[in-house]
Amino acid sequence: MPRYRLVIEYDGTPYVGWQRQENGPSAQGAVEKAILSLTGETVSIRGAGRTDSGVHAMGQVAHADLLREWQEHTLRNALNAHLAQAGERVVILEATQVDDGFDARFSAVRRHYLYRIISRRAPLALEAKRAWFVAKPLDHEAMHAAAQVLVGKHDFTTFRSAHCQANSPVRTIDRLDVTRTGELIEIRATAQSFLHNQIRSFAGTLKLAGEGKWGVDDVRTALEARDRKACGPVAPPEGLYFMQVDY
Amino acid sequence: MPRYRLVIEYDGTPYVGWQRQENGPSAQGAVEKAILSLTGETVSIRGAGRTDSGVHAMGQVAHADLLREWQEHTLRNALNAHLAQAGERVVILEATQVDDGFDARFSAVRRHYLYRIISRRAPLALEAKRAWFVAKPLDHEAMHAAAQVLVGKHDFTTFRSAHCQANSPVRTIDRLDVTRTGELIEIRATAQSFLHNQIRSFAGTLKLAGEGKWGVDDVRTALEARDRKACGPVAPPEGLYFMQVDY
Repeated sequence: MPRYRLVIEYDGTPYVGWQRQENGPSAQGAVEKAILSLTGETVSIRGAGRTDSGVHAMGQVAHADLLREWQEHTLRNALNAHLAQAGERVVILEATQVDDGFDARFSAVRRHYLYRIISRRAPLALEAKRAWFVAKPLDHEAMHAAAQVLVGKHDFTTFRSAHCQANSPVRTIDRLDVTRTGELIEIRATAQSFLHNQIRSFAGTLKLAGEGKWGVDDVRTALEARDRKACGPVAPPEGLYFMQVDY
Repeated sequence: MPRYRLVIEYDGTPYVGWQRQENGPSAQGAVEKAILSLTGETVSIRGAGRTDSGVHAMGQVAHADLLREWQEHTLRNALNAHLAQAGERVVILEATQVDDGFDARFSAVRRHYLYRIISRRAPLALEAKRAWFVAKPLDHEAMHAAAQVLVGKHDFTTFRSAHCQANSPVRTIDRLDVTRTGELIEIRATAQSFLHNQIRSFAGTLKLAGEGKWGVDDVRTALEARDRKACGPVAPPEGLYFMQVDY
């Protein structure tokens, strides 16, 4: 069976998350339904990463095994037509035929996420549900300095959800950069893989650093505590974007 | 009566436009209702420019005369609380007390608009209703070259709506720049004032130039025709943003 790699963008707002679940519509389910209506095939696709309800994607990757071969652009356009027809907030950016050896989840060597904060006095109209609104001024340089404590290989027990299913709390963060453009603060995170809620836990903690409530040493102490209770408040899902997967 | 200048952001999607109308909710109406619920005063505010249904604003300006004096930040925050309470997609970015001589519409010396096009193969998920989706590749340099024909003082009969109420079709366009960042093409337009549908008419015509269907001479011919029928198709409202007003 030919295997296809799908690069997927979605607005996470109306979904329970990437993964198909009993309790509501999912981005994965939306793509699977589009495949079913296009091909008549009931397939289970595998994504490179799970995202929570409200979290967005500009470059989620999934693979799907289909019964027959498709022209890549035909497959992409036809799936997009079915997604639009169903009123989904999901689009297929690319569809590429790949080897059987390709696995969207297990072949991934690096995952890139973006967390967006808008720091200003007025609430968000145009960016509502697209960024974390923070009314207090934030020092992005202090946030960046604090973030560097989290780069490298560490036990991230402090920064993972109590529901995280990973066997090990150890991960290697390759990059955690904080930059500002006007009122927009962007946190860019790269690692081979992340723990559940890890980036939102980072973002919530870095906000404390940006407000001056925590210093670099407080972040280090939280990390070394290896205790979920030492984490700052978890940042809301609407600021998080799954950007890209490298293979 | 103290006069306040309000700088306003809104998502134009759910509104019939800026201006209060019989046939549905407006951004102006949303602000006036918030003033009424805050102060008990029924006021009529005046905006610097009308925007059509679906057109957004990041810097609409309006003025309002209130019965009593307010701390500027209190007024802004209280109006935003009432707007949020009402579920409006409108926020007050700034509230500033101004002289009686200030008029949001008539004191304006320059208005700045942005038109956003996303040119790529896949439809928009995250940017749906925030940009014009164009599936064909566009040559932004050809668009910029064509745009320069429209800069300066001209009779813009070709580029205004049949419903335009302005006395004269003559306007002076100070700037009409086309730039690209990846798949995003931005058209930035500046003038003291614009005609109804002028920027959307420009954007639709410049798209023809970007596709290679029209050259610089075709745009010049259309302008010189002074005939609405010579205009390219009018671009959709969701790409247009009212950015800023200079006084």
